[in-house]
Amino acid sequence: MSGTTTSDDRTTRRIVLAARPQGKPKASDFRLETAPLPPPGPGQVVLRALYLSLDPYMRGRMDDRKSYAPPVPLDGVMEGECVAEVVESNDPSRPVGTIVLARMGWQTHAVMDGKGLRRIDPAEAPVSTALGVLGMPGFTAYSGMRVIGQPKPGETVVVAAASGPVGSLVGQLARLAGARAVGIAGGPEKCAHVRGELGFDAAIDHRAADFPAQLAAACPKGIDVYFENVAGPVLEAVIPLLNRYARIPVCGLIAQYSGGGTPPAGPDRLPGLMRDVLTKSLTIRGFINYDFFGIPGIQEDFRREVGGGVRSGAIRYREDIVDGLENAPAAFMGMLEGRNFGKMLVRIGT
Amino acid sequence: MSGTTTSDDRTTRRIVLAARPQGKPKASDFRLETAPLPPPGPGQVVLRALYLSLDPYMRGRMDDRKSYAPPVPLDGVMEGECVAEVVESNDPSRPVGTIVLARMGWQTHAVMDGKGLRRIDPAEAPVSTALGVLGMPGFTAYSGMRVIGQPKPGETVVVAAASGPVGSLVGQLARLAGARAVGIAGGPEKCAHVRGELGFDAAIDHRAADFPAQLAAACPKGIDVYFENVAGPVLEAVIPLLNRYARIPVCGLIAQYSGGGTPPAGPDRLPGLMRDVLTKSLTIRGFINYDFFGIPGIQEDFRREVGGGVRSGAIRYREDIVDGLENAPAAFMGMLEGRNFGKMLVRIGT
Repeated sequence: MSGTTTSDDRTTRRIVLAARPQGKPKASDFRLETAPLPPPGPGQVVLRALYLSLDPYMRGRMDDRKSYAPPVPLDGVMEGECVAEVVESNDPSRPVGTIVLARMGWQTHAVMDGKGLRRIDPAEAPVSTALGVLGMPGFTAYSGMRVIGQPKPGETVVVAAASGPVGSLVGQLARLAGARAVGIAGGPEKCAHVRGELGFDAAIDHRAADFPAQLAAACPKGIDVYFENVAGPVLEAVIPLLNRYARIPVCGLIAQYSGGGTPPAGPDRLPGLMRDVLTKSLTIRGFINYDFFGIPGIQEDFRREVGGGVRSGAIRYREDIVDGLENAPAAFMGMLEGRNFGKMLVRIGT
Repeated sequence: MSGTTTSDDRTTRRIVLAARPQGKPKASDFRLETAPLPPPGPGQVVLRALYLSLDPYMRGRMDDRKSYAPPVPLDGVMEGECVAEVVESNDPSRPVGTIVLARMGWQTHAVMDGKGLRRIDPAEAPVSTALGVLGMPGFTAYSGMRVIGQPKPGETVVVAAASGPVGSLVGQLARLAGARAVGIAGGPEKCAHVRGELGFDAAIDHRAADFPAQLAAACPKGIDVYFENVAGPVLEAVIPLLNRYARIPVCGLIAQYSGGGTPPAGPDRLPGLMRDVLTKSLTIRGFINYDFFGIPGIQEDFRREVGGGVRSGAIRYREDIVDGLENAPAAFMGMLEGRNFGKMLVRIGT
């Protein structure tokens, strides 16, 4: 790692959206390009990416349909957040060598305004955590549990993708609140990690043939909070177990992301869900992480509670790191199928 | 009306559940009986019903399945709330002639503990309003809007069954909060009432062939609050119009009540709804009226705001009164099909 610009820092390698996927993305939906960088203007900096974060929401951005954010245009750089180093600077407040968080997309370099780039202190925690447990996924877990989930002592909290960056923190926060944490993960290795390393009360393999029965057995007092990030068969197994006044924060639906726009065949389960909403006084509430940024003190509380937990070891996290930007598409496609084990990162410039 | 016991007050006529309905209830699912009353014990009173309230939730109690309340047993008295007069009293705090609210069911007389019966002051408002705008339906509208709906100036609030006791208050509260109120009702007469008498900004007839297009035209800025009390095709037309951060208080699903337990044919709309929940940060929250009783001050606020509005004429209400207990089943069946026009009441003992 160096703090000075090299000739390599005048070009960027980047992954663009070559075609809109039909269903699951495939390699030909992505294209690796090289492009020259413009010189930085006043107040701008040249960034070299260290880590790129791969996240399920990116699948939604590949489709040309309305969502909370506009889609990535065809031939546009895939969107994403990086931890990056300032390698050239026209912004005195972001000198060369500063480590920042930047929405620079799937690329090695970018020219951006220095203002608005959040500085990361490498002394506080490994810089990669700014993309995971101390970054967007961590805040998603923290704010969703604090605002919507609100676990109470003795309640049961269920979360899927429990070895992933959001799910792993959801369960640990549930435990810290005195609730029972039940994690769902794919395969015995991940389940062992969820129980052993992360300290959940139970971990269920969603690939098991009797998954619904195992989930019911792990939740003898029903489910009070279901932190929804996957949808599909997990949601189906959860619904009958929901207790009166259960809360369902919805921050992701990974099983649906590649489903396309056509509603699946019946029966129609919407009336049944609405009936449960009514007769059990359920709360189902969608959010994306910046919905809660504005709550007074919440970001400070997050950094203090979760940052403190990470530094003390009370909160654990796991990263799944792939080397090289060119491997980002394959890593992303694998993540959508649950083949990652921990927060999915691409190491680019370190 | 008399304040003394007559020989008639020693027996009760009552409607019992003769059979569990399959789908829509029919006359043979009910049976009119006469039964002797026990003498009142210590602290007990003999009540003579003045008005019986008929409400959509009662359909749910006729089914033998889990809900927020146990089902009415076969041959049991149909559940319901009455405004009643004390005609014999062993409770000095509830002397003969006191008007009270009592869950005495579909019957003319009952013996109950005096303690816990809420007194109604006939000087405040007509006593029948204790079953409507100032009673359970009114509080359902008030608390659902205050806790979940939270209409803001300039927002659009949509409610179905807008000429009914809940819907009519929902829309009037929306207007008082500075929001646009769009009501849905069945037929031109009800729509004229919703616009003219109740002062909604728009009223749409859900029987119109182009109902979804009419609803969209009445909501040019989308929908911010959909107060759900009917489900079915209205919900279908509402979903595409929901704005980001829309709130959906769910207090009833009248269109589904007679549907039985089998999910309808596909396509399965549940994944589409969950996608909207996520991408629009929707809140869907079910409640029944006593969920919010415990919020400090809310009952006093309700009585002051809505009671004051009723007395001043700022809040309007309409009652649909049928005479005679024996006509309760037909009135109930008609109400489930939307044939009532205003709060459905059975006048019994006045």
